[in-house]
Amino acid sequence: MSPKVSNFDKLVRQVEDIFVDNIPFNKLLGMHIESLDFDCAKVRIDMREELVGNFMQGILHGGVIASVLDVTGGMTAFLGQVKKMGDIPDQAKLQRLATFGTIDLRVDYLRPGKGKYFISEGRVLRAGNKVVVTRTELFNEARDLIAAGIGTYVAV
Amino acid sequence: MSPKVSNFDKLVRQVEDIFVDNIPFNKLLGMHIESLDFDCAKVRIDMREELVGNFMQGILHGGVIASVLDVTGGMTAFLGQVKKMGDIPDQAKLQRLATFGTIDLRVDYLRPGKGKYFISEGRVLRAGNKVVVTRTELFNEARDLIAAGIGTYVAV
Amino acid sequence: MSPKVSNFDKLVRQVEDIFVDNIPFNKLLGMHIESLDFDCAKVRIDMREELVGNFMQGILHGGVIASVLDVTGGMTAFLGQVKKMGDIPDQAKLQRLATFGTIDLRVDYLRPGKGKYFISEGRVLRAGNKVVVTRTELFNEARDLIAAGIGTYVAV
Amino acid sequence: MSPKVSNFDKLVRQVEDIFVDNIPFNKLLGMHIESLDFDCAKVRIDMREELVGNFMQGILHGGVIASVLDVTGGMTAFLGQVKKMGDIPDQAKLQRLATFGTIDLRVDYLRPGKGKYFISEGRVLRAGNKVVVTRTELFNEARDLIAAGIGTYVAV
Repeated sequence: MSPKVSNFDKLVRQVEDIFVDNIPFNKLLGMHIESLDFDCAKVRIDMREELVGNFMQGILHGGVIASVLDVTGGMTAFLGQVKKMGDIPDQAKLQRLATFGTIDLRVDYLRPGKGKYFISEGRVLRAGNKVVVTRTELFNEARDLIAAGIGTYVAV
Repeated sequence: MSPKVSNFDKLVRQVEDIFVDNIPFNKLLGMHIESLDFDCAKVRIDMREELVGNFMQGILHGGVIASVLDVTGGMTAFLGQVKKMGDIPDQAKLQRLATFGTIDLRVDYLRPGKGKYFISEGRVLRAGNKVVVTRTELFNEARDLIAAGIGTYVAV
Repeated sequence: MSPKVSNFDKLVRQVEDIFVDNIPFNKLLGMHIESLDFDCAKVRIDMREELVGNFMQGILHGGVIASVLDVTGGMTAFLGQVKKMGDIPDQAKLQRLATFGTIDLRVDYLRPGKGKYFISEGRVLRAGNKVVVTRTELFNEARDLIAAGIGTYVAV
Repeated sequence: MSPKVSNFDKLVRQVEDIFVDNIPFNKLLGMHIESLDFDCAKVRIDMREELVGNFMQGILHGGVIASVLDVTGGMTAFLGQVKKMGDIPDQAKLQRLATFGTIDLRVDYLRPGKGKYFISEGRVLRAGNKVVVTRTELFNEARDLIAAGIGTYVAV
């Protein structure tokens, strides 16, 4: 009943808007933020024919998997930075998001990407002043672990 | 003037058909095979708004880069295997392509993905009986090195 | 009270003998198997001056960390393969160990390697017929996460 | 005949002293700087029994390879930074070396590490203000490519 909205909830909604409206490739792939908090970001993508990488097996393209893990790792790293920033204006936080970039990413393809939808989850391994390292995992709806990622991010 | 077409040229055209017709995500991204030979595979992708990852900077999404490098590495690895197969029917070679998969991929994002079009190039580092390792590089039209990849591939 | 020793316990002791007696570099670094089971291998290394990488900070050399994670990942991968082999003679299993090799390894250095001793732990992410992928983590005695590894292994 | 010594030569000798005298693990492995310049660092290691990883094959331990590649990549990254620093005192440059650290490292093991001695070579792929990415390669005396590395380094 309370009209009060926490600052974090407001920030999350702004991040969601940027995520879909301002990053065209996320929209092309049909990625959605499933949930966001300081300790874990979750991104969802639904299977559809355009995302298939192997027509005989009908599985998700490796590039789609890498894209989802990269985006999830970046969101996770950004939230890890926001947590450390403390009480500064949201606008300053969002500006940092705009300059946040991937330095490198490793993806391990563990099982064929079969499923109706997929959820990737990210966690921070290291939150340094300059560099953030995140670990990500992609599951299908049966909670099979499809792929694992590890990425390094920096605010340019 | 000669109507003779080498076996390799025929195989290349078949691979090109599979690449676009049978791998929907390659089509969605607009990837094209630029050239293919035993020592080097090249893939081209043209910039367009849907592939942008950072609306403020107008640069290629990291997931697009990973996708192109993965595909280029896989093509390179497949051709490395074909080279070792010697004189077996094309059909047998193409079946192997269908079961060829990425084990892992590392991408290093070296410079912002600015450009009108991008060419990725792949070379084989190790062509084992089970596992093939390839190194890939993505350049823009000014030959700036945008990203470097290294991937491990296996025939399932 | 029972003199009966399980087959697995006997295999573990044989693996431990090979680990120290037949792999000279493990001995040079002073690595020891802390524990081995099908789901997790643990390796211990004690800090000493020869292993230091930065004299001003007195921390473990990055190469030592990579070495411990590589060895732990390899042990983990080997045990994952043994689990799948079922009831074949130990000698056959140990021969497989001799041909087991690292394809690639990524190490993320998360915190300075300060500590009196370090324990690395490995878990299998994928146990394929040809390729095994393992994730490893290195902790100091205070359970600070010093480094994380991910490696791909194959039986040659 | 000239007693004049270029600043870079003096710096190189100081780096060499630190390399062996102040980094105990480099000494334990028997690493030596083969050559250093702004564009390429080379490190040499001689085979000896203590560095063996597989007693049946008599090949270099994967951890030794990772160690040499990490050190070579770090030297390369440091020199890339020095190049950008321009004309500041050597002492300031060397202090930066002391705080230079590896963020992450990938090693691809391409061929068995057979040889009498090994040379690793490093080159800078990206020299950013915060982060330096280097590519390294390890050859034996017959110039067989044994392993390839790619590492990310940062000044803490």
